[in-house]
Amino acid sequence: MPSYTAPVKDQMFVLHDMLNVSASDIVGYEDLDRDTTEAILAEAAKLAQNVLAPLNPVGDTEGCVLENGVVRTPRGFKAAFDQMREGGWTALDCDPEYGGQGLPYVMNTAVVEQFSAANMAFSMYPGLTHGAYSAIHAHGSDDQKATYLPRMVTCEWTGTMNLTEPHCGTDLGLMRTKAVPQEDGTYKVTGQKIFISAGDHDMSENVIHLVLAKIPGGPDGIKGVSLFIVPKFMVNEDGSLGARNAVSVGKIEEKMGIHGNSTCVMNYDEATGFLVGEAHKGMRAMFTMMNEARLGVGLQGYAQAEVAFQNALDYAKDRLQGRDVTGVKNPDGPADPLIVHPDIRRNLMDQKSFVEGARAFVYWGAQMIDRAHRQGDKDADGMISLLTPVIKGFLTDKGFEYATAAQQVYGGHGYIEEWGMSQFARDARIAMIYEGANGVQALDLVGRKLAQDGGKHVMAFFEMVKGFAAENKGDEAFERDFLAPLKAASKDLQAAGTYFMQNGMKTPNNALAGSYDFMHLFGHVCLGLMWSKMALAAQARLDAGDGDAEFYRTKIATGRYYMARQLPMTATHLARIQSGADTVMALDAAQF
Amino acid sequence: MPSYTAPVKDQMFVLHDMLNVSASDIVGYEDLDRDTTEAILAEAAKLAQNVLAPLNPVGDTEGCVLENGVVRTPRGFKAAFDQMREGGWTALDCDPEYGGQGLPYVMNTAVVEQFSAANMAFSMYPGLTHGAYSAIHAHGSDDQKATYLPRMVTCEWTGTMNLTEPHCGTDLGLMRTKAVPQEDGTYKVTGQKIFISAGDHDMSENVIHLVLAKIPGGPDGIKGVSLFIVPKFMVNEDGSLGARNAVSVGKIEEKMGIHGNSTCVMNYDEATGFLVGEAHKGMRAMFTMMNEARLGVGLQGYAQAEVAFQNALDYAKDRLQGRDVTGVKNPDGPADPLIVHPDIRRNLMDQKSFVEGARAFVYWGAQMIDRAHRQGDKDADGMISLLTPVIKGFLTDKGFEYATAAQQVYGGHGYIEEWGMSQFARDARIAMIYEGANGVQALDLVGRKLAQDGGKHVMAFFEMVKGFAAENKGDEAFERDFLAPLKAASKDLQAAGTYFMQNGMKTPNNALAGSYDFMHLFGHVCLGLMWSKMALAAQARLDAGDGDAEFYRTKIATGRYYMARQLPMTATHLARIQSGADTVMALDAAQF
Repeated sequence: MPSYTAPVKDQMFVLHDMLNVSASDIVGYEDLDRDTTEAILAEAAKLAQNVLAPLNPVGDTEGCVLENGVVRTPRGFKAAFDQMREGGWTALDCDPEYGGQGLPYVMNTAVVEQFSAANMAFSMYPGLTHGAYSAIHAHGSDDQKATYLPRMVTCEWTGTMNLTEPHCGTDLGLMRTKAVPQEDGTYKVTGQKIFISAGDHDMSENVIHLVLAKIPGGPDGIKGVSLFIVPKFMVNEDGSLGARNAVSVGKIEEKMGIHGNSTCVMNYDEATGFLVGEAHKGMRAMFTMMNEARLGVGLQGYAQAEVAFQNALDYAKDRLQGRDVTGVKNPDGPADPLIVHPDIRRNLMDQKSFVEGARAFVYWGAQMIDRAHRQGDKDADGMISLLTPVIKGFLTDKGFEYATAAQQVYGGHGYIEEWGMSQFARDARIAMIYEGANGVQALDLVGRKLAQDGGKHVMAFFEMVKGFAAENKGDEAFERDFLAPLKAASKDLQAAGTYFMQNGMKTPNNALAGSYDFMHLFGHVCLGLMWSKMALAAQARLDAGDGDAEFYRTKIATGRYYMARQLPMTATHLARIQSGADTVMALDAAQF
Repeated sequence: MPSYTAPVKDQMFVLHDMLNVSASDIVGYEDLDRDTTEAILAEAAKLAQNVLAPLNPVGDTEGCVLENGVVRTPRGFKAAFDQMREGGWTALDCDPEYGGQGLPYVMNTAVVEQFSAANMAFSMYPGLTHGAYSAIHAHGSDDQKATYLPRMVTCEWTGTMNLTEPHCGTDLGLMRTKAVPQEDGTYKVTGQKIFISAGDHDMSENVIHLVLAKIPGGPDGIKGVSLFIVPKFMVNEDGSLGARNAVSVGKIEEKMGIHGNSTCVMNYDEATGFLVGEAHKGMRAMFTMMNEARLGVGLQGYAQAEVAFQNALDYAKDRLQGRDVTGVKNPDGPADPLIVHPDIRRNLMDQKSFVEGARAFVYWGAQMIDRAHRQGDKDADGMISLLTPVIKGFLTDKGFEYATAAQQVYGGHGYIEEWGMSQFARDARIAMIYEGANGVQALDLVGRKLAQDGGKHVMAFFEMVKGFAAENKGDEAFERDFLAPLKAASKDLQAAGTYFMQNGMKTPNNALAGSYDFMHLFGHVCLGLMWSKMALAAQARLDAGDGDAEFYRTKIATGRYYMARQLPMTATHLARIQSGADTVMALDAAQF
């Protein structure tokens, strides 16, 4: 059975050595001193390692079952959920007014990484609830907040997000679910929603569905979509549960992975719903949570790669197969461990340098979200909006790629379910699809985000990289190993942007046909920047002579690997982009 | 449910327009006229499309079950196998002396592509039998051949290959299974073998296991391995079946995919075995079949990508979502089909240009095998030996990548098992692992094949590309779109080879750390060469004004895509290679 060890040391390094959170001016960050953050992470690690990780294969094997209209979760899930609730983990960054602990989002992100790596399917139950909490918190009425939020903060009631319908996923303007206004101010919601994660289950008293639907007579398409609260059980004035609402589970989907999460078809049959925010402004309400939700999915991508990497590394150290060509390393054994072989190293270093770079990227993004929300910083908000599709698309593509690469280290055993490596790959696969398929992320990046606010944010990004390089020049090794490749990669990204401007205005397909490569190119530049920042932070600790020197040296060596072996991808992405749309669009649909 | 349509037109194009098989001087190719090959492919297509493809999801859902020591295959498998046998499909390229039809291997390859695309798990039963047939045919005694081959040609008896043990996969020198000589000339074979595909099942009367084992007292390690025939049921002198041999199924593995194939743990408990060929020369016997077996796995890689692509294409044409930014394409519908979107195109063109290039590569390789075997051509043998790890490693990595890319076109539906796209990806995954994990292919390529016969074959490859470019210059468009990128990619490959020579002699890790990238770089050059050859062939037909002009124009456009959008990968692979082993090997195992 695979195992998971929470990477507390590396999480601490990113939070404190790289981001220096405790010295930040962001409101609330003053609580994030080393002792407090380490205590929180160490405590979360116990739950992740000892409770959630052992349940991960159980969830995969048993899956969820629909019995008499009610979903039964895998053995042990309910007890684990109770433990999570009792530990206060679901309330970490929630508003103290509703029972939350009010910690910064960056801290919650680090904790959620552990839960997600340990058991992705399980962590989606509180994850979806958190999303629904945020939507009601941002857009609900005071009354709605008072009614629902305190129980959602504790996960006594869980939440869901209902967007997709059988005939519409990305294109929500095609939506058919309707919400008919009633005289008492409520709505009757009717329609079918699919792919509803955590749609129903036996771990909470109530499920609060957030449902997008159209009010008849409203504007056509996406502009006529409104957001509704549809509780599974109606809530009485005193907060007790009332009658069952007319919402039911049609079926549970059989999926490639995340079997422990109940992905439901939800049927609404004149269910009572309550409008959240303004009528026809439902998409706006969704969009305000999108940065957080998408960052959370990007996190899932690298979290699965992290746990897969940990197990591949153990296997590579244990499994004896072949001999080191440069000289026997294990003379007393029948063979040397796999890790002596250069191609196994290449694979493990690809994984390690990705996972650690991705962690830094996501925490850095989470800090931007804190700056945007807690300080009202519009520049931070613009920058994280720009980077969100990169975080989501690039990290989930790579997360799956490296979960698969970790599986490869096991040879034939990687293909056998019992060893657990298949599950990591199968679970990671969904992150490339949900919360906006990665092609849609690329479209969002190139079609919307680049030009947002007159291209201000992408310019700011390039200025930031330039400023970083200027501020940190002088050290020959750092310039050669980090700054030079970072500048080259950033130059490729700028060249791609220039290509889009020069060729995409008249012929938009020239930009759109390069959107996916642009998203990946951007991702590499971001990870190059993260590795440069981490190398500096590690060097500073080495120079100061404090801390674990071995850890810092390893950090710098891993960064050198990323810069030397991963950043060269930017040249290929640029070449693909600059080849334009001609070859991409050459065929008529019928010619394929 | 997904569907499969055999790509007979494209198969015919590769066989006749590109390879011009009927004009070849290879013995037996004179039978491969257009009418005969088309008739064979069309007949095979009926079996593949109407019988095997509908059973593919059945095999995935039901899997194989071990009941009272006997394996039960999924519903419908036995009847389909009977149909395959009765159609003579298992005997296509087998020796007429033993009941085979004696057709060239290239023809068998084209037929097997259809069966493999339609139902990979199913097609492994005859596939493994074919491998065992080849081993006995090449190394067995006349008596053994007469006893086993006629029934294996018809698949009345199926075959298996037993190499792996729990503690040894790649490193077969660690093998523990032993074969103790008996006075009557037979051996008692004892040990446990794992990952035995088609290890046992209910579709044939007998299973002929080929087992690698060590004769006590023989040389240590890999040099002391011998090959044995161990039949499930002993065969009497008159050919009838006798007593049950002491071989049994320990368990069936639960795998990520190919559920329809029984992957068995096989226990040998003093089972009676018959030595094949010379004692201690078992690995040599294995190696003679390796080119064919590995080409067959490379084929599996692109065959899964082919069927996945077909379904993704259909979905992209049917599913209405969003609008073409350059103007509405489906004004009467609520939205335009997915295929209007440039990033969907980019994805589909990646898939299409890979699959068609891979098909050409594999048939071209199969023709080389025919030339080597039927003409005794040593140069062809050397060239296919060099290319075999590229065919296996590159095509299975890419096959999985594009099966996954096809799944992505479906959005959320791609993750739901019912839609079938998950199975293609899960099934394709194994091809990267078995028959030598792809890292081992890369090691074989760089550590052995490059230097084989003094580097003669890789030199011949470069000469061939150079000669091809020289012979076909003159057409401006062809030079710009095909020859220029081909020459640039080939130059990158040569530069990588030069780097290995200059840096790998003294420090082998400099070569080994780049082996995986070299394998992919080589693969891209080969597909670039294939696309250049196909473009020429298509242009020749266009110039002659015969055939389906639309098809040939599409072929050239698809080739242009590959050259413009895929070949630029060679620059990144070269950069990774030239960064050497330093960053790869920088960490001690304990530092990870």
